[in-house]
Amino acid sequence: MFIIGELINGMYANIGAAIKERNKTEIQKCALQQLSCGADALDINCGSASKQPLVDMPWLVEVIQEITDKPLCLDSSKPTVIEEGLKVAKNKTIINSTTADVEKLDVLLPLAKKYKSRLIGITISAKGIPQNKDQRLELAATIVDNCVEKGFSIEDLYLDPIVLPVNVAQTQMKDVLESIAEFRIISEPSPKTILGLSNVSQGTNVRSLINRTFLTMAVAYGLDSAILDPKDKELMDTLITAELIINKNIYCDSYLDAYRKK
Amino acid sequence: MFIIGELINGMYANIGAAIKERNKTEIQKCALQQLSCGADALDINCGSASKQPLVDMPWLVEVIQEITDKPLCLDSSKPTVIEEGLKVAKNKTIINSTTADVEKLDVLLPLAKKYKSRLIGITISAKGIPQNKDQRLELAATIVDNCVEKGFSIEDLYLDPIVLPVNVAQTQMKDVLESIAEFRIISEPSPKTILGLSNVSQGTNVRSLINRTFLTMAVAYGLDSAILDPKDKELMDTLITAELIINKNIYCDSYLDAYRKK
Repeated sequence: MFIIGELINGMYANIGAAIKERNKTEIQKCALQQLSCGADALDINCGSASKQPLVDMPWLVEVIQEITDKPLCLDSSKPTVIEEGLKVAKNKTIINSTTADVEKLDVLLPLAKKYKSRLIGITISAKGIPQNKDQRLELAATIVDNCVEKGFSIEDLYLDPIVLPVNVAQTQMKDVLESIAEFRIISEPSPKTILGLSNVSQGTNVRSLINRTFLTMAVAYGLDSAILDPKDKELMDTLITAELIINKNIYCDSYLDAYRKK
Repeated sequence: MFIIGELINGMYANIGAAIKERNKTEIQKCALQQLSCGADALDINCGSASKQPLVDMPWLVEVIQEITDKPLCLDSSKPTVIEEGLKVAKNKTIINSTTADVEKLDVLLPLAKKYKSRLIGITISAKGIPQNKDQRLELAATIVDNCVEKGFSIEDLYLDPIVLPVNVAQTQMKDVLESIAEFRIISEPSPKTILGLSNVSQGTNVRSLINRTFLTMAVAYGLDSAILDPKDKELMDTLITAELIINKNIYCDSYLDAYRKK
């Protein structure tokens, strides 16, 4: 599992304040904590409260690059904000994200190619959030077709079937899981699959339990990557165990420790 | 999920002693605890140390029937022991279990019919434990064919793909999970599927974590029933959440409590 840490996000009070005050130490501490807990990459989001995302994004990228060479996942709904991050990035990058809308794909695919960045494609469009598996597959196909057309390597594409909170879209959970399996056979070579995990438990009282249970199922369905909170130890224990069960980690009596030392 | 509590088993020291000493209270306490934790049925196993299983089994059945009318799962490798339990059972019963061997099926299927009992069929045979999904499916087909031949209703059959400990058969876990999905389409109407869960973590250091992670995946693959420890609260929380995600329980903010009060 390619784990992208979600905690560098201006919507969190500590990060929002650190961005405003240009507090490098706080940002770097958060980055290092996530990496030590097992993150393979770090999501970077200025937060919607940022008044100057075009300046905040490259500042964050530079501050984090000082302490790690792990990939950075540049997270904004505004392509211009993402581009400011790409301009200063020395680490590998992942653009988070495009939708299936042609206006977005027309801007973000050339950007991803220009900066040799991977790209997350979320199966939503201006028409709204898909209501079932077929609609997810249709949007995924639109994204894949556009990648092929524009010469963007499908192996650098992560498709996100978008999971809604279980308290508002309980009937769609199974569709999301099955979409993970179906996205992987949408083309040859396969696109990768990804989930923004925490969304599934939004507004519930037992967030970690719902997150880790859903993630276990997603692993069973072949999920490649997730954006999540690597500091949630129970979540990480569960993830390591889920990958053990599907034979992606080798068993030893201390497999949890062994994975973490890896 | 039809939950069968596993704790009335002579291999546990307290139960082994209680059987020997004819300590009704200890047995009934264990039964009531499991039922209050969410068990829908109770497994009853005299344990291999029992010197007089033909007497112990009916004693256990009668003692437990005094305090509950939930189904009893008569667990022995010896058909004669199972029959002694069936003779005195007033509650619904499940025979645990037959293998795919004709000698066993020839005895246990008529017994199940005679006593209107459900039957667990484990996909093993005298040739040994299956090594992959195809072998599991072949043994499942043998059991189903025998049921059809002998006029035993497939809806009363639970097929168990047999899960081995992850520390000795890590490469087979995915096969077991996929077998669950395949067993369900082996005939119309479908047989039910069941797992003896605790086996998966035998000999490991983090038994509950491995149990609940594997169970979550099995739920995603459509498992109908499991023999497990209902007193493991984290396991039960995970199970309730897994069934929430696949839309078998209705969401409310206090869904864990609500399920337990049900």
